[in-house]
Amino acid sequence: MIAEILATGDEIRSGALVDSNSAYIAGRLEEAGVEVVRHNCVGDDLDRLAAIFIEIGRRADLCVVTGGLGPTEDDLTGKAAAKAGGVSLLLDETALASIERFFNARNRVMSESNRKQAMLPQGAARLDNPIGTAPGFAMRIDRCMFFCLPGVPPEMKRMLQDQVLPRLGSLPGAEPGVSRTVTISTYGYPESIAGERVAGFSERFPSLKLGLRAKFPEIQIKIYARGTDPVQLDGKVDEAKKWLLSRIGEKTFSTRGESMQEVVGRSLKDSGATLAVAESCTGGLISHWLTNVAGSSAYFLLSAVTYANQAKQEVLGVSRETIKSRGAVDEKTAEEMAEGIRRLSGADFAISTTGIAGPEGGTQEKPVGTVCIGLSSEHSTFARKYFFPFGQRLMNKKVFAMTALDLLRRELQKQR
Amino acid sequence: MIAEILATGDEIRSGALVDSNSAYIAGRLEEAGVEVVRHNCVGDDLDRLAAIFIEIGRRADLCVVTGGLGPTEDDLTGKAAAKAGGVSLLLDETALASIERFFNARNRVMSESNRKQAMLPQGAARLDNPIGTAPGFAMRIDRCMFFCLPGVPPEMKRMLQDQVLPRLGSLPGAEPGVSRTVTISTYGYPESIAGERVAGFSERFPSLKLGLRAKFPEIQIKIYARGTDPVQLDGKVDEAKKWLLSRIGEKTFSTRGESMQEVVGRSLKDSGATLAVAESCTGGLISHWLTNVAGSSAYFLLSAVTYANQAKQEVLGVSRETIKSRGAVDEKTAEEMAEGIRRLSGADFAISTTGIAGPEGGTQEKPVGTVCIGLSSEHSTFARKYFFPFGQRLMNKKVFAMTALDLLRRELQKQR
Repeated sequence: MIAEILATGDEIRSGALVDSNSAYIAGRLEEAGVEVVRHNCVGDDLDRLAAIFIEIGRRADLCVVTGGLGPTEDDLTGKAAAKAGGVSLLLDETALASIERFFNARNRVMSESNRKQAMLPQGAARLDNPIGTAPGFAMRIDRCMFFCLPGVPPEMKRMLQDQVLPRLGSLPGAEPGVSRTVTISTYGYPESIAGERVAGFSERFPSLKLGLRAKFPEIQIKIYARGTDPVQLDGKVDEAKKWLLSRIGEKTFSTRGESMQEVVGRSLKDSGATLAVAESCTGGLISHWLTNVAGSSAYFLLSAVTYANQAKQEVLGVSRETIKSRGAVDEKTAEEMAEGIRRLSGADFAISTTGIAGPEGGTQEKPVGTVCIGLSSEHSTFARKYFFPFGQRLMNKKVFAMTALDLLRRELQKQR
Repeated sequence: MIAEILATGDEIRSGALVDSNSAYIAGRLEEAGVEVVRHNCVGDDLDRLAAIFIEIGRRADLCVVTGGLGPTEDDLTGKAAAKAGGVSLLLDETALASIERFFNARNRVMSESNRKQAMLPQGAARLDNPIGTAPGFAMRIDRCMFFCLPGVPPEMKRMLQDQVLPRLGSLPGAEPGVSRTVTISTYGYPESIAGERVAGFSERFPSLKLGLRAKFPEIQIKIYARGTDPVQLDGKVDEAKKWLLSRIGEKTFSTRGESMQEVVGRSLKDSGATLAVAESCTGGLISHWLTNVAGSSAYFLLSAVTYANQAKQEVLGVSRETIKSRGAVDEKTAEEMAEGIRRLSGADFAISTTGIAGPEGGTQEKPVGTVCIGLSSEHSTFARKYFFPFGQRLMNKKVFAMTALDLLRRELQKQR
């Protein structure tokens, strides 16, 4: 099966927006055993859009299209597909009713422009959008089945999952069989070192495919497998997974595709323990990550983002002496921050960060990228100092936050 | 001039890597007055690569190609371009000498595979790479001039700047002229309503192009303009900008492409004021956003993420009575949270959030999506209640955080 992706929209065409949808779609199709051979992007231009629909219709069997389903004038995907297919746009009553329901449920009035979103090319199958106003549609043009989805990532992802992936098997040219994907999430190796650790995989497991995906600051190692006998395939995948885990060791934090905060949260929940956080250089990112997990209120009690030294002293009780003699970015300060927030919150565990995210504030002795991370529990309080060579402020915040959570993850494992 | 971009490589094709190069190149070309009409991507496959070189050669005047210039077997750009152009690869002595120099300067030995990087298609012009081993090349195939650059972003950027942009004016089909882009950032209108507010733009300003970009939860409205007379163009763009601002009103928070936190931060800095935050349902996101701005330590003093009710009482001094009688999600609680964090930090301004991000915790009376936002300054303390119809936890956190910052932005404007 020849599969392609078409991203539409002037934002992507003109470079105003980086197209992350296409990579996501290619990855999901790859997991489902469909190799994407080509990505395309054109802007909000009716003639160019219609032309590329015709072009892809001639050479591919499957194409996932994103964008251009919104209510505004420059949302042209439906119109272009209709033009390419030589059909007209028709009002889809079910789509209209669903858009109306979307607005009613939110006590908002549907505007006239939203009506346009219910116009689908004649003969196209509506693809429901449970979390937005724009329904998608599936439509054959020439030899190719086009799945047109919204460009808004959460809506696109949901519809790809619910509406596109289940239909792949019934497309002409679909190869029968089963596929498996295993995701091993690691933190602590740079991509090149991770690559070296798993070198030799393809000689050892020639029937499997290995992929490294950098999702800064974590590295995901993926096994893609495809075969006809599910039992045999599972055995092979399991063997490969064990080999990879032996190569990566304790730098693996999940084999189920979880985020670091989900792993830490589950571990806290399982042991009935609670957590508090004192953040300086990470500026709230650890708390934000932790509270992205639904149900985190069961273990996450309190975080203090003490950016100012005075706040470190007054809120957390860090001693003036410590900050004066050793500075804010110091193991002792990190320890006192962790102890302080644990005392204040009554939590079982506390972590703290104090460091220099940049771009300003670095010195010869403590350059940008330096961070001290503290951990306090009823058993002990300690801190560690790290240096990361990333120049960028946001990258530093992420790598500092990840390191703190990883330190906690290992501590929780130890105390089990 | 018809311009395109071609990204090559299996990492991008398979979705292992998001292609940010193409957006960068499109943006730089757009600034230089060259509109990119199409992006393409294929993997490391000689036949597919050669075919797309031929295809683009027929329809475009200019194409910037990235990737496939490295030393390994699957780096095929030179070979594919030679095949498409019907020429052979020849050793470029200057390129070879430059690669040798690169290794000598680093006290490393050039490997045999690096020799391959000096093989260029016959008739191609070498493009020097001052910071890496892979030289690029420029080559005409059919009507199109291809500029082939490395995929490594810093090398690509440097060579685009030094080797490609200066050559644009001499290409056939180059249009003389200047271009302008204006970004109006708004918060508070859904995309469809924003679209309706600016309807009529293209009739009023037929020579300009308008684009709406949803960057949840903000909506950016962009003017793209191109002309020959800079003075006339600036006048037209200014007129269009004024008209748009009159249509969007106070929902505009920036006309310079700034984020909400940059606008709030600048406003605080300009008036020498400081800020503290008490977050419940936003879980640290407001603090994270604020501290993403370099230099935010000048005005951001402290944030308390008080997830537990006990923390609201003990850390912020919210009265037990208030929480007991009115609940945690209440205007009174939000007011006491804002007052409490302002007292604790000594900041001039304080904002607070308490609400239900979901998916659990909603009731008939206070459904998921309800939030109370408090604001406290020396002049007054008040809170407002909002309801947002987004089901998703992360979307709710973002829209709650944005609403709190927008409330502060308006208050700061008022107090000026």
